[in-house]
Amino acid sequence: MVRAEIITIGDEILYGQILDTNTQWISFELDKLGIKTIRKSSIGDSAGEITSILSEAKSRADVVFITGGLGPTKDDLTKKVLADFFQCPLEMHVEALNDVTEFFLKRGRELTEINRGQALLPTKAQFIPNKQGTAPCMWFDEFGVIWISMPGVPFEMKAIMEHEVIPRLISHFKTPIIYHKVIKTIGIGESYLSDLIQAWELSLPKHVKLAYLPSLGIVKLRLTAFGEDLAWLTSEVENQINLLLPQIKSYVFGYEKDEIAEVVGHLLIKNKATIALAESCTGGHLAHQFTQVAGSSEYFVGGVIAYSNEIKKDVLQVSESILTHDGAVSEACVIAMAKGIRSKFKVNFGIATSGIAGPSGGTEDKPVGTVWIALASEDEVITRKLQLGGNRLQNIHMTSLNSLNLIRRYLLKDLS
Amino acid sequence: MVRAEIITIGDEILYGQILDTNTQWISFELDKLGIKTIRKSSIGDSAGEITSILSEAKSRADVVFITGGLGPTKDDLTKKVLADFFQCPLEMHVEALNDVTEFFLKRGRELTEINRGQALLPTKAQFIPNKQGTAPCMWFDEFGVIWISMPGVPFEMKAIMEHEVIPRLISHFKTPIIYHKVIKTIGIGESYLSDLIQAWELSLPKHVKLAYLPSLGIVKLRLTAFGEDLAWLTSEVENQINLLLPQIKSYVFGYEKDEIAEVVGHLLIKNKATIALAESCTGGHLAHQFTQVAGSSEYFVGGVIAYSNEIKKDVLQVSESILTHDGAVSEACVIAMAKGIRSKFKVNFGIATSGIAGPSGGTEDKPVGTVWIALASEDEVITRKLQLGGNRLQNIHMTSLNSLNLIRRYLLKDLS
Repeated sequence: MVRAEIITIGDEILYGQILDTNTQWISFELDKLGIKTIRKSSIGDSAGEITSILSEAKSRADVVFITGGLGPTKDDLTKKVLADFFQCPLEMHVEALNDVTEFFLKRGRELTEINRGQALLPTKAQFIPNKQGTAPCMWFDEFGVIWISMPGVPFEMKAIMEHEVIPRLISHFKTPIIYHKVIKTIGIGESYLSDLIQAWELSLPKHVKLAYLPSLGIVKLRLTAFGEDLAWLTSEVENQINLLLPQIKSYVFGYEKDEIAEVVGHLLIKNKATIALAESCTGGHLAHQFTQVAGSSEYFVGGVIAYSNEIKKDVLQVSESILTHDGAVSEACVIAMAKGIRSKFKVNFGIATSGIAGPSGGTEDKPVGTVWIALASEDEVITRKLQLGGNRLQNIHMTSLNSLNLIRRYLLKDLS
Repeated sequence: MVRAEIITIGDEILYGQILDTNTQWISFELDKLGIKTIRKSSIGDSAGEITSILSEAKSRADVVFITGGLGPTKDDLTKKVLADFFQCPLEMHVEALNDVTEFFLKRGRELTEINRGQALLPTKAQFIPNKQGTAPCMWFDEFGVIWISMPGVPFEMKAIMEHEVIPRLISHFKTPIIYHKVIKTIGIGESYLSDLIQAWELSLPKHVKLAYLPSLGIVKLRLTAFGEDLAWLTSEVENQINLLLPQIKSYVFGYEKDEIAEVVGHLLIKNKATIALAESCTGGHLAHQFTQVAGSSEYFVGGVIAYSNEIKKDVLQVSESILTHDGAVSEACVIAMAKGIRSKFKVNFGIATSGIAGPSGGTEDKPVGTVWIALASEDEVITRKLQLGGNRLQNIHMTSLNSLNLIRRYLLKDLS
């Protein structure tokens, strides 16, 4: 197994002024190559810190990726530290100087002395061109470790990785084969899911590992298999999934990069169905889940955000008596809203939400987090009551997810 | 200077399956306290790796933050490793068990054996409650270092930091006196803003530092003063802001934690005005900006998401001829939509959006990113055309921000 470390250099990352997205991207790509990231580190623009972490990484990793610290300004000192660490001088690199000169020429800008300095490289570096910017990439093969220094600007780093570094990694290392599959579930918490699949989990073979990746309302299960033969690993993982699925089928909405709103969209297209929304407590959030999917206009017609009771009455024809007797947060109200939007917008399905998102507005009977949702089809109206326990934004988010899951399971004829 | 290290634990971070946003958030908060982050690391769910990094951090840092690895499932082993590292056993913690029991009781869910296990803590831990979830937070004072272990779920970690950990850090460490103020701008890019305030920036005294914190559509300016006397630092920063404001007044929408939708809400309340939306390309996103503000029902009445042309016609009374001749993405269409929603929902202000969010749907005349917005008041309709260059989600987001800024400046009588 090839072990990788990723090091990002820069005070702006260390102090939280910018979010480092490079390490995630690099590790995701390495994972696909079967190279195992064993550590990620961020350190500041300090020669001492950079030298320390290079020394540490030397004893742990087979390949070290370093991003940042290569710009033309004074606080960028990675190259000097690398030259010292590898005990070689910095020298003007002819090809690098050509590249940086051409870069400025093409853009009609003057080449300054500071920019010329970007072509100074440690003599032990193999030069890797950067087509998108002026900071060069360097590859070192020293101390039995491969060291790759890249600029920190994400689009420059990504282009260099894709076109230059990844092909070199593939030819340099004998990488193992890894197969991953992510199963996405909704409507069940991590601990309940864990209880439900305990026996299956305990019987997993040693070469297949399971990880739980929970987020608000959604739990992902990731299966990973290591070995020699991709076809065999794939079948091993798929066999395990086939054993698992019958136990959790209703909760599984997709795999890998599938999103719940996209999955619902595909089901609506498959059913040649259209949908519209009558939102009270979700206040547009549910519609945004639908409309952030490209191409959603094929099935998503629109909606009414009925925040006030007047709009529920005037636009959605919820009766005065429901609002007075049952209240806006009631089964009767969401039934009327769902039916109202379905007929007004002339769609196959209407979904309605009404609840108390909080932080205020709760009563003893209907505390914060009390939510009703309804799904109206041609033949029937199905309702659900939720008792949520989060803050305002979480309650909104969970109501949207529950609504999406309700229509998903309805379209799959999987409602109990 | 207090030195901090931040360690995130989890294979899902190491393999790049999720983006770690916790370390950025923590380091940003520490920076505000005058605590210097010296290193950030991510490692996998491996006892050996966790033990190694704890040993390393012991010799470098005064305080170590550890997130992740505390969930109820099997791959979470941080607590066991911490108990070994601090040479103490795990024991059931009464207060932690009460909390986890109450958490489940409140939600009407059964407490499983796995969840009970979450209350097992190393005996040397000081227990810190987690009001948002079931994984407890732990504070250790061992080897002359403070160790803080928190759950990896971002909203749980943030709540614990804000309410529990930061106050304890302030009382434990003698941190220097720092005064921060964040000025929030909208409607101007970072480089234009930088050009505009260059002279002011160059004349800042040495003890006042400026940082640009850009994000999509919003640039924050953070002024920081270090010293001995808080009253003096405060007046120094406020004086500088008073010099700056006349140059950028129209762009400043707030300070510190002010959010643009909240600011607009306050202005609407102040003007005793109500608002409703007619959204096409923003598809609910703009309404969600309004309704995620607690108490927004005081001024936000509702909206129509008119995704299809039929809804624009039938519900908002946009004429057939506008849709045929001008098209749905046109000034005439958003004017009709804004007037339509204003009269239908009987509000003071109507806002309409229509555009091509992408990735498809662009033409030569109206490429992806072409957006019209309109604001209808009793007396007039004001329109804006945007030419955005982002992806679908960015274009939706920027349209919402521009709409909020339009009504903000209208209410301030600050439209040019």
